[in-house]
Amino acid sequence: MIDLATRVYNHTWKIDPIVRSLLDTDFYKLLMAQTIFRRHRNTSVTFGIQNRTRRVRIADFVDVGELREQLDHARSLRLTRGESTWLRGNTFYGKRQMFSAEFMDWLETFRLPEYELEVRDGQYDLTFHGLWIETTMWEVPALAILNELRSRGVLRGMGKFELQVLYARAMTRVWEKIERLKVLPGLSIADFGTRRRHSFLWQDWCVEAMSAGLGECFLGTSNCLIALRREVEAVGTNAHELPMVYAALAEGDAALAQAPYDVLRDWQQDYEGNLLVVLPDTYGTTRFLADAPDWMTTWTGMRIDSKEPMAGGEEAISWWRSRGCDPASKLAIFSDGLDIDMIEAIHDRFHGRLRIGYGWGTLLTNDFRGLVPDGRLDPISIVCKVIEANGRPAVKISDNPTKAIGPEAEIARYQRVFGTGGQAVLPVVV
Amino acid sequence: MIDLATRVYNHTWKIDPIVRSLLDTDFYKLLMAQTIFRRHRNTSVTFGIQNRTRRVRIADFVDVGELREQLDHARSLRLTRGESTWLRGNTFYGKRQMFSAEFMDWLETFRLPEYELEVRDGQYDLTFHGLWIETTMWEVPALAILNELRSRGVLRGMGKFELQVLYARAMTRVWEKIERLKVLPGLSIADFGTRRRHSFLWQDWCVEAMSAGLGECFLGTSNCLIALRREVEAVGTNAHELPMVYAALAEGDAALAQAPYDVLRDWQQDYEGNLLVVLPDTYGTTRFLADAPDWMTTWTGMRIDSKEPMAGGEEAISWWRSRGCDPASKLAIFSDGLDIDMIEAIHDRFHGRLRIGYGWGTLLTNDFRGLVPDGRLDPISIVCKVIEANGRPAVKISDNPTKAIGPEAEIARYQRVFGTGGQAVLPVVV
Repeated sequence: MIDLATRVYNHTWKIDPIVRSLLDTDFYKLLMAQTIFRRHRNTSVTFGIQNRTRRVRIADFVDVGELREQLDHARSLRLTRGESTWLRGNTFYGKRQMFSAEFMDWLETFRLPEYELEVRDGQYDLTFHGLWIETTMWEVPALAILNELRSRGVLRGMGKFELQVLYARAMTRVWEKIERLKVLPGLSIADFGTRRRHSFLWQDWCVEAMSAGLGECFLGTSNCLIALRREVEAVGTNAHELPMVYAALAEGDAALAQAPYDVLRDWQQDYEGNLLVVLPDTYGTTRFLADAPDWMTTWTGMRIDSKEPMAGGEEAISWWRSRGCDPASKLAIFSDGLDIDMIEAIHDRFHGRLRIGYGWGTLLTNDFRGLVPDGRLDPISIVCKVIEANGRPAVKISDNPTKAIGPEAEIARYQRVFGTGGQAVLPVVV
Repeated sequence: MIDLATRVYNHTWKIDPIVRSLLDTDFYKLLMAQTIFRRHRNTSVTFGIQNRTRRVRIADFVDVGELREQLDHARSLRLTRGESTWLRGNTFYGKRQMFSAEFMDWLETFRLPEYELEVRDGQYDLTFHGLWIETTMWEVPALAILNELRSRGVLRGMGKFELQVLYARAMTRVWEKIERLKVLPGLSIADFGTRRRHSFLWQDWCVEAMSAGLGECFLGTSNCLIALRREVEAVGTNAHELPMVYAALAEGDAALAQAPYDVLRDWQQDYEGNLLVVLPDTYGTTRFLADAPDWMTTWTGMRIDSKEPMAGGEEAISWWRSRGCDPASKLAIFSDGLDIDMIEAIHDRFHGRLRIGYGWGTLLTNDFRGLVPDGRLDPISIVCKVIEANGRPAVKISDNPTKAIGPEAEIARYQRVFGTGGQAVLPVVV
């Protein structure tokens, strides 16, 4: 029986929207937004998209009209009643009413602000100017839209059957990784793959797979909408944009040197428990740890991001020991470019020495490597970063110079203030 | 939108029928049926099901009530108008009106006859007594029903997600085989997997996969219903039941020795071209070829079945050469327990020396080996064979003594008449 109504309804769609909800974003954006809302409501920040995989000329096969339609659709979204109820009523990290009534009132009326779009050398130059609290919300949907439009561009023209085999292969690949994860003792892993996902539906499938395959070892997803629908935990803490904006706003070198710790001071007033995870690498982990105030030892854990994971883990252990803490009681979240081999290696090295959590991103939700000719579905390294705050350039140094961001003169100044110890050039895969 | 009508219609089904059409059978059953209809309309033959994989106790996990429901459903089927039109109007092996008007008139009123079902030592003892022309039609649907009920029994209780991954893996496996097939020069391969298939829908998927992946190198399917629906060729020639019944009916040893050739004499009156493919192994290929009349050299080809394929191919080449034929102009159909490695090996050895065709059965349509624990979906070797004809026992010797069928005394008599040269014990996988 053909359901005529459904069939007719379907063929009258204008577009197939990629982002269909304001909750189709990472949980940490909401946590950071609440902190921004409380403390920096009038700060202006520009975010910009950058495709670090220059060889993939997205603008050559993603139509600018389609991109605008998707971005415009995202701008039409408002938090729905059920979504608001979930944010107000759900338990996050074991706590009720994570979000204040004031913040929720604001979020209920929020819409994504304007964007600026240009094409330059085969890449989309997509920027968001305006209040930090508004522009920050573009990061995840903008990246998800660009990544999925790219997937769609590659998949267009493939037969029904080729598509079926493609997804069968991708599913098999994810499942084989999950089977290897299953046997890791004391595993705790979460999906961090919203921004670089192949598509929304594929991320949703991956979350279901992780949940079915790993049970309690699957901690949850960074994606709020999927967490809501699949009734799993929403997870995530904070990102480089906080220290980057704090640093940009700092008056003078002394204030700049203090900015990364100011972020933590504010954060620990807003959040507690497993949300107290330090992200130490914005201006180099080694110096950041050396200069850290003693109260930072009370934090629950640390995220090992741009540093090579083995070195990063050892450095964290040494630091905790040097400050009289038992590393085995501390949480280390590994989250940079992980895939199954690296997870196994990390686990092999650190299980028992640290409480480990994995934030698995791109190579969970977008591992279509080699599944179409010429690697045309291989993931690309596309980011959305703070460019300036209140007119002052934003800078990131990172433990991996390949990931540095900012004008040269400012980078030099930051390097002078923060030093350059402990950095190492690593290839950026995703 | 939920289609209420469909939903309600679905939950009122009594069973989910496995065989839904009389055309859900192998094409060669119809070719043989026409020959039987013309020449042996009053012969009575008993067919019996035998599970050669004794360790799998089907009756322990396939409910007898469900089995009866499925068999009874198959008995309720009649050729539909569209199916009859297809048989009358379609081109088979390049020929129109393959089936005579008299045969079609009979087929249009045909229903599957009664069956007898008992349970013995964990196995179903399923037999069909009656006119050959009627009981012969049970072979394929009975086997397909038993195999699919067994699959269903194993799959019952698996989660939606586990099932999805299971099929993703099975699809990936089939596709990887197809990709290996693609590169074989001058490939010609057909699906022969109806009887041992995992399920009807899975066979249908495999045919679609072969068709999409191999294009013109995919010759077609033995399954008439799928050939009709997918608009591909219906393929197949004949089976051991013809010489087995002819031999059982033969009066005395001289007639017995002649019986396998009598089959060919009748067959070549009914069919021509690529349907003239000798099946030489019923009572041992070596002696059969040695004693063959010269007119058999005019046949298009030979099926290499129970003999080890390399030995079988070489024997066919030698025989054609010894009778003054160019083997490179002759068709050799390999069809016994094939899988991709064997196909590659055969191709490597015989491509260019013979015109090769592959009839790929169980390991195309039922390769779920190792995809659930304890190999519970591994295919089993279940057959439906002639037991007696007009009250006289039927015997098969084969090139592989493991496949011999019949009462001991009769086997001894047949061995005396046909000799035992060229036999070799091979493990029967499927």
